[in-house]
Amino acid sequence: MSHDSGAAAVREHEQRCKIITTAERLFRQIGFQKTTVADIARELRMSPANIYRFFSAKSEINAAVARQLMGEVETAAEAIATGPGSAAERLRRLVQSNHTMNAERYVVDRKLHDMVQAAIEENWPTIDEHIQRIESIFQRVIAAGMEAGEFRVGDARLSAKLVCGACIRYCHPRLMVEFADYPEPTCDQMVDFCLAALRAGE
Amino acid sequence: MSHDSGAAAVREHEQRCKIITTAERLFRQIGFQKTTVADIARELRMSPANIYRFFSAKSEINAAVARQLMGEVETAAEAIATGPGSAAERLRRLVQSNHTMNAERYVVDRKLHDMVQAAIEENWPTIDEHIQRIESIFQRVIAAGMEAGEFRVGDARLSAKLVCGACIRYCHPRLMVEFADYPEPTCDQMVDFCLAALRAGE
Repeated sequence: MSHDSGAAAVREHEQRCKIITTAERLFRQIGFQKTTVADIARELRMSPANIYRFFSAKSEINAAVARQLMGEVETAAEAIATGPGSAAERLRRLVQSNHTMNAERYVVDRKLHDMVQAAIEENWPTIDEHIQRIESIFQRVIAAGMEAGEFRVGDARLSAKLVCGACIRYCHPRLMVEFADYPEPTCDQMVDFCLAALRAGE
Repeated sequence: MSHDSGAAAVREHEQRCKIITTAERLFRQIGFQKTTVADIARELRMSPANIYRFFSAKSEINAAVARQLMGEVETAAEAIATGPGSAAERLRRLVQSNHTMNAERYVVDRKLHDMVQAAIEENWPTIDEHIQRIESIFQRVIAAGMEAGEFRVGDARLSAKLVCGACIRYCHPRLMVEFADYPEPTCDQMVDFCLAALRAGE
């Protein structure tokens, strides 16, 4: 790759990032359905045609914003998984981090809630990717706990799915809203319950 | 109560039941929002005014149909809880029964799904009642398992909430639809996981 084409690739990446960041801000302000490509272009002082050089349709911008929001949750989870602490401590922090970040994104911010709800209902590939990435991070921590003798040795992949399933009301946007009036069981109580199952084995 | 007023009460009860059963059938056929009081009256060959003697508004009919559908699930659960088997076996049957009955009602039948979804979103009191009744049935079985030495002694009320929370994707109408393409973990695997936690204690 020549120096010029490398620099062009960097500029292109920067432009894409700017469009996604601006779209996310508008999605939070006026909602993802009401935000048009023209709105995003106006904010960036560029022409809609220029936006279409990077994204062939508004739906691609939606998907890129969703990916960025979920990517941030995955990055935080990754940092916890590779960070200090016992496997049990890291599992607890993983659930809490997903809970807190998703609450900030999809409960406090009802406009983003509408977007992720559409993503779930319309099966955007981002949702499936996100579930798989989060589950694989849980799996690695559980496998480490099995190796260290903290958890009973078993199928770490299945155990990750069980823990994520059991904790779903603390990270699924709609359930977090539906269960806002049901304080119990708390996130910590559910993690304790899962840890008891992991220590005992199935 | 005189013989006459007793007979009148029986007739009134029968009339209410007929209206609810007819409404449920129409809800399944054409949807709960499209069904009018006039439709229900026509099916029963009575006047809408007669229906309003029993239900002051269409919303009361909706609530009565929802109560009946959930009442059937509660009755089945009650029979399992007081039936034969170890506490572990009854817990498994409870989760499976809720799963199967809710799937028949709210996944196979998308028109009823819309009704229960509205009930959840609009906080119909029926939903809260249903959750409380189901949780108290789980609580009794878990308490019996603690007394019998099957489960570690602890807070049966909290344990019931934890098991119901962990198993929510097998009985919540929307989650059953959303997770239709995610076969794992199965309902049985999640019950095994919960039983391991109950045996070990938190």
